[in-house]
Amino acid sequence: MQISRKNLDQRQDHIYDTIVVGGGAGGLSAGIYLQRYNLSSLIIDKGKARSYWMQELHNYLGLPPDTPGSELLKHGKDHYLSLNGDFLNGFVEDVVDEGDTFAVTTKVGRNNNSVYPVLRSKYIIVASGIIDQLPPLEDMQNVYEYAGYNLHVCMVCDGYEMTDKKCGFFAGSEASIEEMVFNLSWFTPYITIFTHGMFEINPQLRQQLEDHGYRIVETPIKQFLGENHQMTGVELTDGSVIELETGLISMGSKYHNDYLHRINLDYKGNNLITDKMGRTSHDRIFAIGDLKVGLNQVVVAAGDGALAATQIWRDIRNATPPRRWEENLFISEQLPVSSYQ
Amino acid sequence: MQISRKNLDQRQDHIYDTIVVGGGAGGLSAGIYLQRYNLSSLIIDKGKARSYWMQELHNYLGLPPDTPGSELLKHGKDHYLSLNGDFLNGFVEDVVDEGDTFAVTTKVGRNNNSVYPVLRSKYIIVASGIIDQLPPLEDMQNVYEYAGYNLHVCMVCDGYEMTDKKCGFFAGSEASIEEMVFNLSWFTPYITIFTHGMFEINPQLRQQLEDHGYRIVETPIKQFLGENHQMTGVELTDGSVIELETGLISMGSKYHNDYLHRINLDYKGNNLITDKMGRTSHDRIFAIGDLKVGLNQVVVAAGDGALAATQIWRDIRNATPPRRWEENLFISEQLPVSSYQ
Repeated sequence: MQISRKNLDQRQDHIYDTIVVGGGAGGLSAGIYLQRYNLSSLIIDKGKARSYWMQELHNYLGLPPDTPGSELLKHGKDHYLSLNGDFLNGFVEDVVDEGDTFAVTTKVGRNNNSVYPVLRSKYIIVASGIIDQLPPLEDMQNVYEYAGYNLHVCMVCDGYEMTDKKCGFFAGSEASIEEMVFNLSWFTPYITIFTHGMFEINPQLRQQLEDHGYRIVETPIKQFLGENHQMTGVELTDGSVIELETGLISMGSKYHNDYLHRINLDYKGNNLITDKMGRTSHDRIFAIGDLKVGLNQVVVAAGDGALAATQIWRDIRNATPPRRWEENLFISEQLPVSSYQ
Repeated sequence: MQISRKNLDQRQDHIYDTIVVGGGAGGLSAGIYLQRYNLSSLIIDKGKARSYWMQELHNYLGLPPDTPGSELLKHGKDHYLSLNGDFLNGFVEDVVDEGDTFAVTTKVGRNNNSVYPVLRSKYIIVASGIIDQLPPLEDMQNVYEYAGYNLHVCMVCDGYEMTDKKCGFFAGSEASIEEMVFNLSWFTPYITIFTHGMFEINPQLRQQLEDHGYRIVETPIKQFLGENHQMTGVELTDGSVIELETGLISMGSKYHNDYLHRINLDYKGNNLITDKMGRTSHDRIFAIGDLKVGLNQVVVAAGDGALAATQIWRDIRNATPPRRWEENLFISEQLPVSSYQ
């Protein structure tokens, strides 16, 4: 059920089988599986998962290709609640490993009206994901106007929509140019790179980019231009205008994993290393979706959720003796004698 | 587009980037990703994937929990065709590794009216899955009447629906009893095991089962009883009747991989061993869904498809020089001078 400040007290003595940190695609899929394994679970969600911002999920099997990410999340939450899962809107601030349980301190409510309940579970699924850094303009509302429409943050998701279009590449570092621009040319070679004046490009890379005909713009951006959420170009701080038909933002990501700071886990870069079932280097902590090493895709995160929940079920089930048919309630009189041998 | 005998000739000189064998959840998800990577793909589908038989997909994030598997497959196929993927109804009989390409011999059309085109691709995704063996009754129509409704084939999928119900466990071997029955007791301890008289149970296992109060029925089954697709019990060949509320069939699976017989691949049991992206021990053959080692779940297969398609794209992309902005078509007059440095 939906947990709030009003019914929070009921849950503070309960030890959940699993607390899932994050109510995005991965966390919701995990929650659905956990509840269907007859395990008790709590999803703690800060709101606005990365997929919440996607205006159209083009590549999720089974959903029409214009389904907003927010609709997937809403359906998933309803599905989870229908299986009697607990869902709490809150921000996980701290996790302490107590041996058999974890103590999960969560901020519930806004700023000067917050409470900080401690919730407990045997397992944790880290599903709190990442969020993309956006170009730091004076008027951020101008960025939100187009981000998730034709100003994209994921080449794997939306490269197809950029095919042979005039594309702005909004870079956060030299490394993001090296990693992404030549791959982006698979979809479109009409690339203009914007550095926003935030970093230098070394002469060798600059030469390589020029050799491919890609443009480099180092003057900071004043604002995106367009209407009805369709970006048509950018205006620079010097007043000049560059026409574009689409854009890809690649300025790095914020990783939502501060709450794990006390726990020693194996990482590759910022991503948690897991086995095929999502188990991290800590036996009772699983990681799924964008926080683990792998491909950041909604359908992959949903699959990850199924895997992690299944492994937790196997762990708990294998530590529990099989149940016996104790009662005689169900013995059919017609059951043949041979069956009692 | 939908390929048939009529337009098959157009495709016989074409080398696809990837042929996907199997149009189930995994294959369709792979196809959607491949087309969105601007790669050319062909899905060859024999029809009636395992999920086609599922009356209700209870655990697929984003779909209402009463969605039939066939609806997911229909939506996925429409989605794939809308991206200009090629889809052929046929049965893959043979695959020959020609070095840079594979030659895929496919039976199209029924029996005495078949043709056997040879189609070619650089990569193959093995997504042809498995199908469950069903109890071999004289009247198989009687089995189909209930299979996929409350007579289940997958404990992970439908264990929840069996919770604390009188459950028939239809075993194919002693091993299936050892592997499954004690796990099934997680969901319900009211288990009656049916051997159909096909195999013996060793005394030690029999004792263990009896100690847990599970019933064993060794008389063969005559028929399932019930109405409106709801199985309510079985009638044995000796005329006795055993009441049940649900059932789980565990009689092994047919693996749809005969066409791989010429190719030396690494298996674990019957399942193909892959890396995290689905690559088998052959560089250009990927396996996804139920044929690979892993969890047989629709949402996992869909995630697998995204991973395999992405790795194939990376392979092909990395072997292709980045595209250059050759034309002057798109150069904006307003582009500031600094961008040409």
